[in-house]
Amino acid sequence: MPHMLYTEIPTHRPVTPLLDEIDHPQQLRQLEQSQLTQVADELRQFILYAAGQSGGHFGANLGVIELTVALHYCFNTPHDRLIWDVGHQAYPHKVLTGRREQLMTIRAQHGLAAFPAREESVFDTFGVGHSSTAISAGLGMSLARRYQQNPCEVVCIVGDGAMTAGMAFEAMNDAVAHDADLMVVLNDNDMSISCSTGGFARHLAAIWEKGQLVNIDEHGEAYVQPHPKWTYNSRLHQSATDAADNLFKAIGFDYFGPFDGHDVEHLVHVFNALKKRQGPRLIHIYTKKGKGFEPAEADPITYHAITKITPVSIAPVKKSPPKYSDVFGQWLCDEAAQDDRLLAITPAMCEGSGMVKFAKQYPERFFDVAIAEQHAVTLAAGMACEGLKPVVAIYSTFLQRGYDQLIHDVALQNLDVTFGIDRAGLVGEDGPTHAGAYDYAYMRTIPNLVIMAPKDENECRQMLHTAYDFNGPAAVRYPRGAGLGVEIQQELTKLEIGKAEMVLQCHPEHDEHITILAFGSRVSVAMEAAQQLAQLHDIGITVVNMRFVKPLDEQIIRDLAERTQLFVTIEEHAVMAGAGSAVNEYLAKAQIMKPTLNLGLPDTFMAQATHTQMLKNCGLDAEGIQASIEKVWLRIVQAV
Amino acid sequence: MPHMLYTEIPTHRPVTPLLDEIDHPQQLRQLEQSQLTQVADELRQFILYAAGQSGGHFGANLGVIELTVALHYCFNTPHDRLIWDVGHQAYPHKVLTGRREQLMTIRAQHGLAAFPAREESVFDTFGVGHSSTAISAGLGMSLARRYQQNPCEVVCIVGDGAMTAGMAFEAMNDAVAHDADLMVVLNDNDMSISCSTGGFARHLAAIWEKGQLVNIDEHGEAYVQPHPKWTYNSRLHQSATDAADNLFKAIGFDYFGPFDGHDVEHLVHVFNALKKRQGPRLIHIYTKKGKGFEPAEADPITYHAITKITPVSIAPVKKSPPKYSDVFGQWLCDEAAQDDRLLAITPAMCEGSGMVKFAKQYPERFFDVAIAEQHAVTLAAGMACEGLKPVVAIYSTFLQRGYDQLIHDVALQNLDVTFGIDRAGLVGEDGPTHAGAYDYAYMRTIPNLVIMAPKDENECRQMLHTAYDFNGPAAVRYPRGAGLGVEIQQELTKLEIGKAEMVLQCHPEHDEHITILAFGSRVSVAMEAAQQLAQLHDIGITVVNMRFVKPLDEQIIRDLAERTQLFVTIEEHAVMAGAGSAVNEYLAKAQIMKPTLNLGLPDTFMAQATHTQMLKNCGLDAEGIQASIEKVWLRIVQAV
Repeated sequence: MPHMLYTEIPTHRPVTPLLDEIDHPQQLRQLEQSQLTQVADELRQFILYAAGQSGGHFGANLGVIELTVALHYCFNTPHDRLIWDVGHQAYPHKVLTGRREQLMTIRAQHGLAAFPAREESVFDTFGVGHSSTAISAGLGMSLARRYQQNPCEVVCIVGDGAMTAGMAFEAMNDAVAHDADLMVVLNDNDMSISCSTGGFARHLAAIWEKGQLVNIDEHGEAYVQPHPKWTYNSRLHQSATDAADNLFKAIGFDYFGPFDGHDVEHLVHVFNALKKRQGPRLIHIYTKKGKGFEPAEADPITYHAITKITPVSIAPVKKSPPKYSDVFGQWLCDEAAQDDRLLAITPAMCEGSGMVKFAKQYPERFFDVAIAEQHAVTLAAGMACEGLKPVVAIYSTFLQRGYDQLIHDVALQNLDVTFGIDRAGLVGEDGPTHAGAYDYAYMRTIPNLVIMAPKDENECRQMLHTAYDFNGPAAVRYPRGAGLGVEIQQELTKLEIGKAEMVLQCHPEHDEHITILAFGSRVSVAMEAAQQLAQLHDIGITVVNMRFVKPLDEQIIRDLAERTQLFVTIEEHAVMAGAGSAVNEYLAKAQIMKPTLNLGLPDTFMAQATHTQMLKNCGLDAEGIQASIEKVWLRIVQAV
Repeated sequence: MPHMLYTEIPTHRPVTPLLDEIDHPQQLRQLEQSQLTQVADELRQFILYAAGQSGGHFGANLGVIELTVALHYCFNTPHDRLIWDVGHQAYPHKVLTGRREQLMTIRAQHGLAAFPAREESVFDTFGVGHSSTAISAGLGMSLARRYQQNPCEVVCIVGDGAMTAGMAFEAMNDAVAHDADLMVVLNDNDMSISCSTGGFARHLAAIWEKGQLVNIDEHGEAYVQPHPKWTYNSRLHQSATDAADNLFKAIGFDYFGPFDGHDVEHLVHVFNALKKRQGPRLIHIYTKKGKGFEPAEADPITYHAITKITPVSIAPVKKSPPKYSDVFGQWLCDEAAQDDRLLAITPAMCEGSGMVKFAKQYPERFFDVAIAEQHAVTLAAGMACEGLKPVVAIYSTFLQRGYDQLIHDVALQNLDVTFGIDRAGLVGEDGPTHAGAYDYAYMRTIPNLVIMAPKDENECRQMLHTAYDFNGPAAVRYPRGAGLGVEIQQELTKLEIGKAEMVLQCHPEHDEHITILAFGSRVSVAMEAAQQLAQLHDIGITVVNMRFVKPLDEQIIRDLAERTQLFVTIEEHAVMAGAGSAVNEYLAKAQIMKPTLNLGLPDTFMAQATHTQMLKNCGLDAEGIQASIEKVWLRIVQAV
């Protein structure tokens, strides 16, 4: 049965007779090997259909259909452990492990998680989301089972993009130290989320070019077959042919491959042979992102994830305010035009961070370092040492990977590096793994660092300029998604460092007075809530856009203290150690003893939902803020 | 001139006529090549003498004498950039770059920094301390200079131990992506601080075994010479002979070596040849830690660093309370004896973390993962998934490297991992790079995590047991150095989670009352200060050992609030976002409006001094605490 190639996303559920019978991989394992191609085809049709219904990650899932079928066919899951690195390719795995009918709920509130999650299924052996953790986790499992004298097969499935992260290398090094029984399936589709860069990618291309080992005998011994006629990325192809050494063998893994990752029967043959062997083994397979869906094969970057479709066709893009990422990207271009000392760095998030235009316009000033957050930050430090002004674009959740470098290499040396921190706060459907809920806490404890959060997209642009202009390390953290729709002032204007902005004064003449100190994305909703409160309770309310988490505008707090009966701090960040906590520190230092209400994210990991739902769930929408303030205010009034 | 081998550390300054004339590397470069061996010998004698006077890092410095001389001879420093990874091997570099006469002050207050530091010298191109940053920083410099069209030679000197950290791999991958002009000198001495482990170490051994390339012609082309008769670590030797692929070549570097790193004239020949070439180059040299000093060559781990010697001989070890590291190590053994689910993990800090005994006693339960903090944390997560109870021993400053893994892999999945966090707070002579001043802030914002800090070594033991017993992620952070000398209770006793301990009540009958909430190492000094204050001012003072930073004992604060006119929080951690800040959050939440004084580390990176001096400098000794409280108290009293 040849591979089917689909051209449209089905809007009606496809007929999938074999798949419908699989509620546990045990049922898959009872099928004949010759039926697996059909299972794969049905699975692909079903994934296409489901993705159209729910939206979500797409290309990676289509690429691992055959691999997933082969793995669950060859290994005794869940006794044997499959660990999916990153996990945005785990939809077929979810379907084959009893979650077929729930797949349409993926990424929705109360639905399936976007990634494997231990609490969701016993087949999800390790929660993932960030890349490159699978080999470490799998090694931990393998060593644990060896120690318990209860061995099982442990298989880590890792994309080529994830392999560039140092963590994967650390884990491979350690696996060899222990001669651990561990299989790593390198799912090589020649791209991380945007496009793999660097020596590693060239190396894979070189291996492919040589086509060293393309088959394996029943004992797992490799033998050479003629090179099949698959095409390979020509950019890599060119520079690769002289690399002759195998990195995985060098580090001490047994290496097998490359194999065709879309030939499910061949994969079964390979896994069955290799699971008889011991020690650390790397199985290199080649797959195509978006496999089997023509538009995705042709443009895998666009089809990395898709949005829901309407029953008839893909919904036209609604005209909405620009995304913060795009505001960042435009600012980057504009600032670069004015100052040739600007260089920009991304750890494999060129599209997500809104840098496509910059990369095209200034290729010699654009540095995509692959998935390598630690390196990204210290690379910037090195550039700053030479008098340049690097800008690191990074998601809040991924800066956690470069935290030591932010302290030790940038802030300690007080180097002039600007951080554009995207996806700060809650991130909606991606769920808790990607929440940017901790950056104020982990950053504001670091000396020398300036930290800002904009109230809207125009302020974001001006803050980025302010951070860039500041001669030292400075960060602007902004939320996922679109701005408020305000006009964006083209001229780049510096804000005064450490200076807040009064944005609303309701009934300033009133003696009874609430002062709201709002940060970043919560300024606008704080204003809404304040207006409601002022009307309902006939009290005075002042709302301050604090702008700076560090240095804090202490003066405005001091000035407002006298007429304030209640301070409220609001932020889209954990209350613990967050921006409100910085306000508390100042109030203590200045011995201003006023009731203070700290609003922000609760001390829990919040399950996925839409961004709006999540904010509502934790009382950070205008209504929730109003209710929280009211409750405390009434208590104060009654106590008087 | 043959290498001299010394057997004693000289107590009188040696005669070093050539060295005395070198105040700038330019003067070194004016010497004949044939004089360099003598320069190296003088430098070695001088380093031996100086280390005896000042203490400090030792073995690594003796190992790079010839390398340092050759580098400054061949490269036009400071125009060309030398970046010393880790930097504990930079003493010879400091001597040759105008800091000879200051070397005896190294690591002392107002003296030379333990590591290269940009503010100290123009020759220190990048501040270091943590390992594996040099290639990223050097690449940043190289790319910056290329962009500026003002190229220079950039040479990163990296030990084999530091190469296992993923960050180094990330940087190499990226260097190849840019075909950057960059030389990496791999200083292979077959050990990180304790002993290299893993596939990488075996790989180096295999390269060595093959002795592929041991010379180079004047154009930088390598040619094979017979294998010299150096010995190599036999443990590695055994398993290495079948590794045939070169990792550096695989990733895309030009590889040269291995060369004898103690043959200074040969090194000059190699560097002069290779600096004519372009692109990323790796020069593999073999050196011996402690080279030229017999006791250190024989036992390089003990001689990693030494303490000052008295004028006559090495001072006998003074009997003092056990170090916290040793308390941790003993606890680990005792807990392991009771529970065979315990496994212990260290990222290359077996000795520093006090784990030597455990490693000997339980080799199958001991995992030294090499310098690989990210991997260490996620490895533990994987083990916990299989029902084991891993303990990660890590310094506070190095946990910054595993921060994302702590959040994303451990806490988010609420896995049962115990963290023994050593060197928390100020660390004295190692200076700001190694300060553990941020862990409360970066940890307490994470849901699910329990965080403790002991008042003394006995409580440390009981807290470790409590953390271990707790079914979820828990951390105990304890300071560098020795305990207080209290008796250590052998029986392992659980503390109640989230429960503080009242440790002192002076004049509880007094209406005027100060409540001190002290954390960890500051409890005992808080008690001293309190007793002084109570006597001097005839006021009531209560001191609470808070024990838990998370969950905070809110009840004890609430209970004490009524009779308290002033709350004081004290911690050996940054005030910003620290433990006192957690207290402030609770006071706000509970609407307890009392004057509150947060004492802790200031918002600056503090230069090195002794631990005692540093605490004094920031007012965290008993005297300083007393003074700070007095000042605020008098203001309160006067205001009444």
